[in-house]
Amino acid sequence: MVAAVPVVGGEPVALLSGDTRPERGPDAAVADIAVMANRVISETIRAQGGAREDFVGVGIGSPGPLDLSAGVILMTPNLGWDGYPIRDRISDAVRLPATLDNDGNCATYGEWWLGAGRGISSMVCVTVGTGIGGGFIEDGRLLRGASGSALEIGHTTIDFKGRRCGCGNYGCLEAYASGPNIAARAREGVEAGYPSLLSDLVDGQLDRITAALVYEALLQGDEYAQEVMTETARMLGAGLANLVNTFNPEVLVVVGGVTRAGEHLFGPLRSEVRRRAFASAIEACSIVPGVLPDTAGVIGAAGVFLAEHQS
Amino acid sequence: MVAAVPVVGGEPVALLSGDTRPERGPDAAVADIAVMANRVISETIRAQGGAREDFVGVGIGSPGPLDLSAGVILMTPNLGWDGYPIRDRISDAVRLPATLDNDGNCATYGEWWLGAGRGISSMVCVTVGTGIGGGFIEDGRLLRGASGSALEIGHTTIDFKGRRCGCGNYGCLEAYASGPNIAARAREGVEAGYPSLLSDLVDGQLDRITAALVYEALLQGDEYAQEVMTETARMLGAGLANLVNTFNPEVLVVVGGVTRAGEHLFGPLRSEVRRRAFASAIEACSIVPGVLPDTAGVIGAAGVFLAEHQS
Repeated sequence: MVAAVPVVGGEPVALLSGDTRPERGPDAAVADIAVMANRVISETIRAQGGAREDFVGVGIGSPGPLDLSAGVILMTPNLGWDGYPIRDRISDAVRLPATLDNDGNCATYGEWWLGAGRGISSMVCVTVGTGIGGGFIEDGRLLRGASGSALEIGHTTIDFKGRRCGCGNYGCLEAYASGPNIAARAREGVEAGYPSLLSDLVDGQLDRITAALVYEALLQGDEYAQEVMTETARMLGAGLANLVNTFNPEVLVVVGGVTRAGEHLFGPLRSEVRRRAFASAIEACSIVPGVLPDTAGVIGAAGVFLAEHQS
Repeated sequence: MVAAVPVVGGEPVALLSGDTRPERGPDAAVADIAVMANRVISETIRAQGGAREDFVGVGIGSPGPLDLSAGVILMTPNLGWDGYPIRDRISDAVRLPATLDNDGNCATYGEWWLGAGRGISSMVCVTVGTGIGGGFIEDGRLLRGASGSALEIGHTTIDFKGRRCGCGNYGCLEAYASGPNIAARAREGVEAGYPSLLSDLVDGQLDRITAALVYEALLQGDEYAQEVMTETARMLGAGLANLVNTFNPEVLVVVGGVTRAGEHLFGPLRSEVRRRAFASAIEACSIVPGVLPDTAGVIGAAGVFLAEHQS
C-alpha cells in the first residue's frame, strides 16, 4: 500500500494498494512500488494542487528483522530478499529521501499520531494478524531496542511448557492467538463435531475456515464461534496483561482483523486482563481497538519519516 | 540501609544497615532512618572533611506500589503503612529534599550508574529475591509507566494455565523462580526422597531449607541442588527471553541472592534464553550478574535523586 500523507497529519490524500508480487524478487517489487508512489504523487497534485517539491520523503514499513540504521531487510523467511537494502533502492527509484521501520512500529506510530493514541504519553500497540507484533511509544519516541527487534510481542512465552512455535521458542502468544491459529483452533472443534455455522459458511470445506469467518459466524450469533473468541480472549488476555504489567501504559491499542469481532472480543479480553494485571497498572490503562484498521501502518510509516527528519 | 554516596558517583563513603522494625508503624521507622542518616552524614564528614551543606538530598527506595509524584506508599500487604507520605516525612526528619522510587528501579539505576551497566544505552535489570522485580533504563531514563508500576516482571505470566499467584494472576514468573519458591521446590523433592546434602545442612528440619542453602549445597557438589538450579534456569530463562524479545536491550543484569550460584545458574540460564529468544535480539544482549550485590539499591536511590535534581 502506498499513500500520500499530509506533513501536518491527516487522512491520506491518495492511496493505492496492489500486489507487488514479491516472489519476482525485490528489484521488480521496488520498481512497482516506485510506479505506485509516482502515481500517488500525481493524483495528490491533481486533487489539491502543489508541486512534486512539496513531497518531502518516503517512509517505508516492512516486516522484520531489519537493520534499521542501514535500511536493510535482514531476512525474509520465504522470499529470498535477505540483506536487501530496500530503503536506498526505494529512495533512488522515487528520488526522495526515505526511512525504514518495521510494520509493528509503523502501526504503533500511526495509531499514536492520528488514531486511538492521539495525545497520549505512553502507549502499547498490539497487532494481531497473520502474526502478532506491536510497538511501544513514550512521549512520541518508539522503543526500538539495541538491534531493532524490540516488542516482538508475538514471541513472548505465555506457556513455558507449551508447543513449539515457528520461531524456535515454546508456548509463544502467537502460537495461540494469531489469525491462522484462531482459525486452526476453530477448525479443530468443528472437526471434532461441535455444531457451528462455520461448516455451512465454507460448504463443509473446513480448511477454508479463517479467523475472519469466525468473526462473521460470531456476528451471526453462532455460539461455538463465540466460544472460540472467548478462548482467544483468555490467551490474548494473558499476553496483554504481561504488557500492562511490563509497560504500565496509558493506552493499549489492539489492531488487526481480530478487532472486527468488536465487543464480542473486547468484553472478555478486558475482563481477562483485569483479572490478571496489577490493579494500579490496569486502572491507569484503557484497552481499545485501533481506529485506523487499514491505514495505521502506511500513515505511521510517513510519521516515522517526519519524526526522523524533524529531530 | 542508609548510605552516603558521592555526587560524582562511587562507592558509599559511609553505610549503615539495621532493622527499622516496620511493624511499629511508619513514624517510628522514619525516626530511626533519620537517626541513621544523621550518623552517616557525621561519619562521612569525620572521614573526609566537608560540612553538612555538602549533602544535597536523600534518595529513598521502597517496595511498591507507590505514588511516585506524591512520594507516597500506596499499599503494604502486611504492615498497614497504606497511604503514608514517606518522602516528605523523611525529608522533614533529615531536613533535606528527597525523592522516592521503587526498589526495582533503584537497583536498576544503581547497576546502570556504577555497576554492570555502566556506559550502556539500554539495560534491563531483574531482581530475584523474596519477589521478582526489575527495571528498564534507556539513555539514562528509567521506564516508570503511567502509574509508577512498570516492570512488574515477577507478575508476568509464563504459564497462562499455571497456579494462582499471591497477586491474583495465574502462572506468574515469581510463583516459580523467586527465592522462597526455589526453596519450596527444593524442599518438595527432598521430602519426596531425592538424596541431597540439603537434609544434612538443615539437620533434617526441611522447613529450614532456603534458596541460599540450595546454592550452598550446589557449591558443595550436590547433584540434586544442581537439578533444582537447572530447573530454575529453565523457568527464569522463559521470563528473561520474554524481556529480551520485548526490550531488545544491550545488557540484561540479574541481581539478588540467586546470583550467588554463579555459573551454575548463569550457564544454563544463558542457554535457555538463547534457545527461546530471537536471534537478532539475543545476539545483541549480554546476560550478566550484577556487580553491586548489596548496594545497587542504595546507590541507585541516590542516583535517582541526583538525576531528578539535575534535570
